[in-house]
Amino acid sequence: MKITEVRVQTFRYRSRMVRDAHGHGHPGDEHDATQSLLTLTTDDGATGNALGSLTPAALRTVNEVVLGEDPFFHERVWNHLKERQRLNLGSLPDRVLTVVDLALWDLVGRVLGQPIHRLLGATRESVPAYASTMVGDDLPGGLDTPESYARYADWCVRERGYPAFKLHTWQPPLPGAPSVRHDLQACSAVREALGPDVPLMLDPFHYYSRLEALELAKGLEELKFLWMEEPMDEHSMSSYVWLCEQTALPICGPETVEGKMFSRAEWIRAGACDMLRAGVGDVGGITPLIKIAHLAEAFGMNMEVHGGGVGNLHVLCAMGTPGLYYERGLLHPFIDYDATPAWLNSPVDPMDSNGMVHVSAAPGLGLDLNYDYIRDNSVD
Amino acid sequence: MKITEVRVQTFRYRSRMVRDAHGHGHPGDEHDATQSLLTLTTDDGATGNALGSLTPAALRTVNEVVLGEDPFFHERVWNHLKERQRLNLGSLPDRVLTVVDLALWDLVGRVLGQPIHRLLGATRESVPAYASTMVGDDLPGGLDTPESYARYADWCVRERGYPAFKLHTWQPPLPGAPSVRHDLQACSAVREALGPDVPLMLDPFHYYSRLEALELAKGLEELKFLWMEEPMDEHSMSSYVWLCEQTALPICGPETVEGKMFSRAEWIRAGACDMLRAGVGDVGGITPLIKIAHLAEAFGMNMEVHGGGVGNLHVLCAMGTPGLYYERGLLHPFIDYDATPAWLNSPVDPMDSNGMVHVSAAPGLGLDLNYDYIRDNSVD
Repeated sequence: MKITEVRVQTFRYRSRMVRDAHGHGHPGDEHDATQSLLTLTTDDGATGNALGSLTPAALRTVNEVVLGEDPFFHERVWNHLKERQRLNLGSLPDRVLTVVDLALWDLVGRVLGQPIHRLLGATRESVPAYASTMVGDDLPGGLDTPESYARYADWCVRERGYPAFKLHTWQPPLPGAPSVRHDLQACSAVREALGPDVPLMLDPFHYYSRLEALELAKGLEELKFLWMEEPMDEHSMSSYVWLCEQTALPICGPETVEGKMFSRAEWIRAGACDMLRAGVGDVGGITPLIKIAHLAEAFGMNMEVHGGGVGNLHVLCAMGTPGLYYERGLLHPFIDYDATPAWLNSPVDPMDSNGMVHVSAAPGLGLDLNYDYIRDNSVD
Repeated sequence: MKITEVRVQTFRYRSRMVRDAHGHGHPGDEHDATQSLLTLTTDDGATGNALGSLTPAALRTVNEVVLGEDPFFHERVWNHLKERQRLNLGSLPDRVLTVVDLALWDLVGRVLGQPIHRLLGATRESVPAYASTMVGDDLPGGLDTPESYARYADWCVRERGYPAFKLHTWQPPLPGAPSVRHDLQACSAVREALGPDVPLMLDPFHYYSRLEALELAKGLEELKFLWMEEPMDEHSMSSYVWLCEQTALPICGPETVEGKMFSRAEWIRAGACDMLRAGVGDVGGITPLIKIAHLAEAFGMNMEVHGGGVGNLHVLCAMGTPGLYYERGLLHPFIDYDATPAWLNSPVDPMDSNGMVHVSAAPGLGLDLNYDYIRDNSVD
């Protein structure tokens, strides 16, 4: 079995998500947006899909590496792509590896008629979710004040059934952001609204100083938060070692820093985190995410999976030392996250009223694609 | 799919391997010996096999954990067995986990029609082997003198095609053993016989003192050996840190120490080895061996797989950072290792004349069992 075609289809859809000058998503007016689907096809007609775009330069390298390969050699393909990154730093970031790796796992799972978590060796078929908000904004009744966060947290937990809640607070370019004091006001309002027993987490501004990060951590200790993520630039690992030494609040990371399993090994060794963090999108797919889960397990550390989506959900259902939560979102009072995207027939992470997200039993990733929609809205 | 039966069949065969008072194998007179086959069967008649015995107490625990489980949940089963070890330390050693884990992987691979290295994500289909000798003896023309090792090494490399050679030297209860001086004489004779370019390794007596181990290491540095294994009790990790600091010779370990991926994480962190070591038999199967391969990879370290057999061979064919060699043996001038055991129709690790061992393309482990022989020689 050999891969004979790498195809990227780009298609239009209507989006209500807009990005600010720093790249953060917020609700906004409906407008045209595009999404892409990567499809790998073999000589005997098997296919594997994953959502995500590739630049022409990335597609060229992917073609060179993938064409003619047996999809069951996905570990070799991943390593070959990784080895091509050094001289193609601009065009071959880890997110390209992610899309190709997900499509390879999808292909193999579909050929074998098995969902990926069962190929990895399953441990469970559902995972508790936490509600993960968008970053703060200035939309009245949105995520504009501590009280708005509290009101939305109350809805997420008491109405929608989420067992836990994570705030992303205000960030530049929003006037007044960042502010440790404002962050803590929001966290305090949410804690007050939900009572002492609901697990809460914070992912604040990512470029605080050491002292600001510590002030935030001390405040969250009092509010009995479960963890905090990335309050400082993660390229300064020493800052995280320092922070972990100063606070009893669990620090979860790294998320943004490059280096896949290698950088995460260094964070554990250095004592720069209390919980490890990685997601398929950060590290280059299911292949490295499993390596990182194994790395964390060998050091007795929890790995909390970053971000949602089918790839992360399958890994969460195959971890020996389980990740505590599936990150569901990003959420906002003005957006119906449970609505199925136009390019799918059913959602990727259906959550029941007890806050459990159920993994698909369909072969491969289990993406329930609406091929008609994708064809009819193609922009090629 | 649920596992409905755990069956152990024990059968007789004729062996020419005898064990000395310390447990080391040597050639000897032919005699009756037994081997066992574990078979897991599911409600729809699928089966998975692995070679290895279980005590009645172990079988009782395995039944409790495994019956009713879906074999595709092998990660969960492995963790459940592991959690049962603490209160069953005597009856549930890692080797029991190994046999069950191998049978689970075999079952899954057979259901899916795929060999295990492809389910893991393959990287290659053959691996260079090294000739791994039995420990030294006093059998004339066996492994009794440095010259005998040299003569046998010459045959292994020049006649049989092994690209590398590892000595296990003399150990108690053999009179005169252990001896650093004698070990180095054997290593020196082999180096002289094979010339400067053949990779050589040593696995000596395992309870030398620090200073004896260092004397050995310094001698092997001069002889340009590729690595040395386990010259001291591995429970003293500090001794290995000390040794690694004193010598440029790569130290490969740990092999015997308990603790699966956990102890190996500590060895890396402490700087107690230059190459990591683990095999399916040491750590509880394919499931933990893959975790350890991933752990080593995250720290940029080679993992050299301990021991031969189908489980290790599949893992070697799926490692992103490849293990350098397959350990083929244990070998002795008086034993024909290439002869197929009576309970198999074909050998598990066929080696070509270039010293490459080829992994089976058959589903699961690819054990080519002679079911007639096993039935006809049953001792139940």
